[in-house]
Amino acid sequence: MQITITEIAPRDGWQNVNEYIPLETKLDLIDRMFAAGIQRMQAGSFVSPKAIPQMKDAKELFASVLARYPERSIFALVPNLQGARAAVECGLKEITNVISVSESHNKNNTNRTVAESMAQLAEIRETFPNLALGLDVATAFGCPFEGETSLEALMGYLAQASKVKLDSITLCDTVGVAYPAQVKRFVEAVRRELPQVSLEIHIHDTRNLGMLNTWTAVECGVTHVQTSLGGLGGCPFAPGASGNTATEDFVYLLDKEGISTGIDFDKLLAAAVQMHSVVNGNYSGHQLTITNTVC
Amino acid sequence: MQITITEIAPRDGWQNVNEYIPLETKLDLIDRMFAAGIQRMQAGSFVSPKAIPQMKDAKELFASVLARYPERSIFALVPNLQGARAAVECGLKEITNVISVSESHNKNNTNRTVAESMAQLAEIRETFPNLALGLDVATAFGCPFEGETSLEALMGYLAQASKVKLDSITLCDTVGVAYPAQVKRFVEAVRRELPQVSLEIHIHDTRNLGMLNTWTAVECGVTHVQTSLGGLGGCPFAPGASGNTATEDFVYLLDKEGISTGIDFDKLLAAAVQMHSVVNGNYSGHQLTITNTVC
Repeated sequence: MQITITEIAPRDGWQNVNEYIPLETKLDLIDRMFAAGIQRMQAGSFVSPKAIPQMKDAKELFASVLARYPERSIFALVPNLQGARAAVECGLKEITNVISVSESHNKNNTNRTVAESMAQLAEIRETFPNLALGLDVATAFGCPFEGETSLEALMGYLAQASKVKLDSITLCDTVGVAYPAQVKRFVEAVRRELPQVSLEIHIHDTRNLGMLNTWTAVECGVTHVQTSLGGLGGCPFAPGASGNTATEDFVYLLDKEGISTGIDFDKLLAAAVQMHSVVNGNYSGHQLTITNTVC
Repeated sequence: MQITITEIAPRDGWQNVNEYIPLETKLDLIDRMFAAGIQRMQAGSFVSPKAIPQMKDAKELFASVLARYPERSIFALVPNLQGARAAVECGLKEITNVISVSESHNKNNTNRTVAESMAQLAEIRETFPNLALGLDVATAFGCPFEGETSLEALMGYLAQASKVKLDSITLCDTVGVAYPAQVKRFVEAVRRELPQVSLEIHIHDTRNLGMLNTWTAVECGVTHVQTSLGGLGGCPFAPGASGNTATEDFVYLLDKEGISTGIDFDKLLAAAVQMHSVVNGNYSGHQLTITNTVC
């Protein structure tokens, strides 16, 4: 069995770091992650520098990373067509767009209705028919404003989204409210209804369920898992969304379970320690601790 | 489905608090736990005050708690016959003894060989034939000195221990090295071989696997789960053994899964916050954070 770890700290983690991290520091950390064996990375986003100043160097960062790691799977998050254009100009072959299941979170996150976001997703696809296009399903399990997401709401949303040709779908537990029985129910339903789409999972660790929910998704057949080095993460527009499943913790688990990731755990842990030394004390998410260094 | 939470912070948590916590503070915290609905508690240990000064008030603490909560299941950990005598003198009807599977950890923890500890367990049983007697199986999954515990080693140990009439057995992941496949294999084997004994699980959270491993045990049929309010815990004689599965996190999970514990989550969380305000900055275990308060 083989699991692909999609490293998301450079996007979902760093966007929560208040002070700008210099480009060379970011590139050094990305080097360490790739050196540890990470094969797939959401390395940043093309967003308004006013909204998320940390991502102001996305163009330079992607240009450098794409040139140096042509064999890795590297993609960007884009909130809109403008972001998609910027990504393509950088040479990216894969992007992901984000739309919430919940109207109120989508409004908060993107200032659009879900229908407007869906129309924009179609426009991105029409403009770039050959680009690998993914969709981050925000609030797939629950919303800070509307509570638990029903399976009916999720499937209705996915039926709408699937009118656009998508290459991957990521179920995002944006605020960390998923629980194992729900993860199982939702993942099984999505795999049944959309068997042709590559399915990823992205679980926040708000209530200490990151490892269990991510593992549950793997047990249900999900082979692409989004995790964040050092547990960095959180949505700046979703109150209380703190922490992602930590890459090093999940790789430790997979190693113990005899599941291959191609990642060198010791190098990964060293990269996590370096990551924390860069971002700690300067971070709007949860207090960072690296569990796997204690013993 | 019903799970019994065995609260262990008053023993496994407080023994790691460097400064003495006044008896009235301890009793106040225990009141809060019982008020939240905790039904079963390992409320302390009868050990040498030289070895663990925090437990020097065990006699007064148990006398008070037993008098005030006659309907709850309250027990003490005892390392030896002397401790068992002290517990019985206090009016305790249940005690648990601890023996490691690993020779080197048992030596480190109790200064006895495993055979000597087994002989002592038999002596405790002979001396107190009517006492409910449990056994904490330390290093059931792995040892800081000897590595992973084999199922053969565990079952050999249990065959030996079972010559003594035991009322309960607790599989303890003393240093937090268990993983789900191992928990499943070990729990299933023990339930098959010793169906008559009440089986509890006690998982340390050293590598962020506390929730997943404890949940795995529940999925394998374990109905008695030891957790620690606020995640407090760690073995003072096992380097790096930091943190237990947090009671409030596990109760949150069980609530979401529709599994009854009889515990009021909000009251429990308030008790965890109070616990942290008492012990933080004064604690030799891991840095304490309460995940469930963030949202």
